[in-house]
Amino acid sequence: MCYILKPQVYFQARRDVVKSIALLGSTGSIGRNAIEVAGNLDGECRIDLLAACKSVDALAEQIRAVRPRYAVIADESLLGALMAKAGGTDCEILGGADALEALIRSKKFDMVFHAISGGAGLRFSVAAIEAKSTLALANKESLVMGGHILIALARKKGVSILPVDSEHSAILQSIADNDRKTIRRVIITASGGPFYGFTAEQLEKVTPAQALNHPTWKMGRKITIDSATLMNKALEIIEAKWLFGLDASQIEVLVHRQSIVHSMVEFCDNSIIAQMGVPDMRIPIQYALTYPKRRRGATPVLDLAAAGTLTFEKPDMERFPALRLGFEVARKGGTAGAVLNAANEVAVAAFLEEKIPFTRIARVVEDMLSRERFIESPTLEQIYSADLSTRKDAKQCLQIQ
Amino acid sequence: MCYILKPQVYFQARRDVVKSIALLGSTGSIGRNAIEVAGNLDGECRIDLLAACKSVDALAEQIRAVRPRYAVIADESLLGALMAKAGGTDCEILGGADALEALIRSKKFDMVFHAISGGAGLRFSVAAIEAKSTLALANKESLVMGGHILIALARKKGVSILPVDSEHSAILQSIADNDRKTIRRVIITASGGPFYGFTAEQLEKVTPAQALNHPTWKMGRKITIDSATLMNKALEIIEAKWLFGLDASQIEVLVHRQSIVHSMVEFCDNSIIAQMGVPDMRIPIQYALTYPKRRRGATPVLDLAAAGTLTFEKPDMERFPALRLGFEVARKGGTAGAVLNAANEVAVAAFLEEKIPFTRIARVVEDMLSRERFIESPTLEQIYSADLSTRKDAKQCLQIQ
Repeated sequence: MCYILKPQVYFQARRDVVKSIALLGSTGSIGRNAIEVAGNLDGECRIDLLAACKSVDALAEQIRAVRPRYAVIADESLLGALMAKAGGTDCEILGGADALEALIRSKKFDMVFHAISGGAGLRFSVAAIEAKSTLALANKESLVMGGHILIALARKKGVSILPVDSEHSAILQSIADNDRKTIRRVIITASGGPFYGFTAEQLEKVTPAQALNHPTWKMGRKITIDSATLMNKALEIIEAKWLFGLDASQIEVLVHRQSIVHSMVEFCDNSIIAQMGVPDMRIPIQYALTYPKRRRGATPVLDLAAAGTLTFEKPDMERFPALRLGFEVARKGGTAGAVLNAANEVAVAAFLEEKIPFTRIARVVEDMLSRERFIESPTLEQIYSADLSTRKDAKQCLQIQ
Repeated sequence: MCYILKPQVYFQARRDVVKSIALLGSTGSIGRNAIEVAGNLDGECRIDLLAACKSVDALAEQIRAVRPRYAVIADESLLGALMAKAGGTDCEILGGADALEALIRSKKFDMVFHAISGGAGLRFSVAAIEAKSTLALANKESLVMGGHILIALARKKGVSILPVDSEHSAILQSIADNDRKTIRRVIITASGGPFYGFTAEQLEKVTPAQALNHPTWKMGRKITIDSATLMNKALEIIEAKWLFGLDASQIEVLVHRQSIVHSMVEFCDNSIIAQMGVPDMRIPIQYALTYPKRRRGATPVLDLAAAGTLTFEKPDMERFPALRLGFEVARKGGTAGAVLNAANEVAVAAFLEEKIPFTRIARVVEDMLSRERFIESPTLEQIYSADLSTRKDAKQCLQIQ
């Protein structure tokens, strides 16, 4: 039971019409790349809304460059500052998450490209689907916390959820027009992070500065730490389960240090289809923007002969227990995703502030999962409540704040 | 300008109807595998015709096991022997290539699975397309010699030509439902053959016994030698050009010693899709039989973690000049394919009889190509004539017979 719709009837019917995009999280790494990619698509997409959380200066600059119809600063206290800096444009500038949600619900957009990070992003995913906008999803927490709600809603509304993550985009591209029932497994690749091959003792002493130095991808601080603990892969396992309608047992993770094969799909006939490319987020971002079509890309071409060697190995689940937790949560479903995500957010922040050692991150997540009052089919309110209470418990457990 | 039709209207309309197959070359390696694969497809396919060239005993055994409606021994002089051995079955047994062609033209078959090797197979490909049977093609010479005729005919008749080669099947699987106009390049992988890394001096001294020892695939003698010279890859370059409507400049060959990635497609967005699997011909054979669907396969599952390392490198065109000739012929088209193929067949036979050294094979092909009276759009007759005169010239040049 997969929920990426086949090539959108909507886009097919309106192929000569410009696609109207609401870009949430425009000042982050994914958001900036999305603006660049959309700008190279010869007018196929038009960004009609830019939304950022706090980055007033960057958003003001984007407003002048992109000239959207709407701009929203989610932190309402910064509205005045943004209006002062982006004045004189014909862009309608608003403040606050409620204003952003109301705009998304106004059905003005063909696609909501959701690159705001954190659990607060779930409400915008729900709003996008209820407005019947295609949801291009970079916000991992939406599916990790509320996968069962989002997928049921998307099915009911007939809306596509398209992945922006390189791994899930690779899976989508590998599935292509194959019957979903013929998928035996997906193989998610993992770079292994900066601490690949570290001993338990070495991991114990890892500093935030070391952890922020990711070998391949340049990303935000939270996701870079998640890449180091492999919690990022745990989130991707849970996302894959929902996005492609898989059982946890159909998901495998392989460490692939070169980050060239972005993920694979194994079919029932023992044929494996893989998607490869240089590690550049603009490729999956563009695929989400132009899906199901492909357009000329501005990224470098992969030179496999120059790359030379691709390696694959099973991950070390003892050394990186986050992975094991990812599979466990994918099996459990319910509120477990919200608990894993909330505990991890608290623990990563504590690690970045040098309050806990690196290896404590996964341990506190495991601890919170073992304590949770599990609800199998939670409502949105119950998800938010599990999120809040886990954050409180995790802070207490870590003796912070 | 590609010519594999999108999922067959025919098969879609008749999805609960058994597919009737004519299997040409049933006693060879591909043919035997095709019988096994078809037998595992839960009655989806029924082999209604078995045809072999000379292997009377093997064919008689297959007739009793498969129980086809028709069996043909192409060497008419062996008809009596076959009838004696396969008597008592209700199979109609015929002799001679003309009888086989007439049966194919009788339009009794949904698919002609063509695994007879050699230039003599071209006529059966033409007959299959004229009868509007889907052509599953393992006979390389059909496209190498008569690509422009077959493709034009298939387009006119609305018939699909499906590849059986692992490389071209990988390309077909990687293209999936992508718009053919978005293909930038195909990357055909090559094992490098048993003489990978050999010096010019070592190649000079290669014996037939050494050349027949292929590292990965167990195949017939002719194709094994072609794998050692990389002439097999040259034939695949020419086939790919016709099958997928490519320019020679859109085809690249990479040496991939592990034979796990069977080929790749690079799209305009710089995304590369690859098909992988254990090196087992039953995977592409099954894909051709069940296309566009996939069915449960009986081959082993690829264990990428166990495989560990995949390597890719540019081929050595100086050491293996056959590859360069392949690209040259793909550029030229016309009668060049027939000349390359005929010269190679003569040279390989001479090498197997220890009449010429290994390195002479490509040299005689190059020599024949440089001498040929090139015709850009030859008729079938002109192709056969180029084939015959090249064989004569090559023998003369090699001073054999």
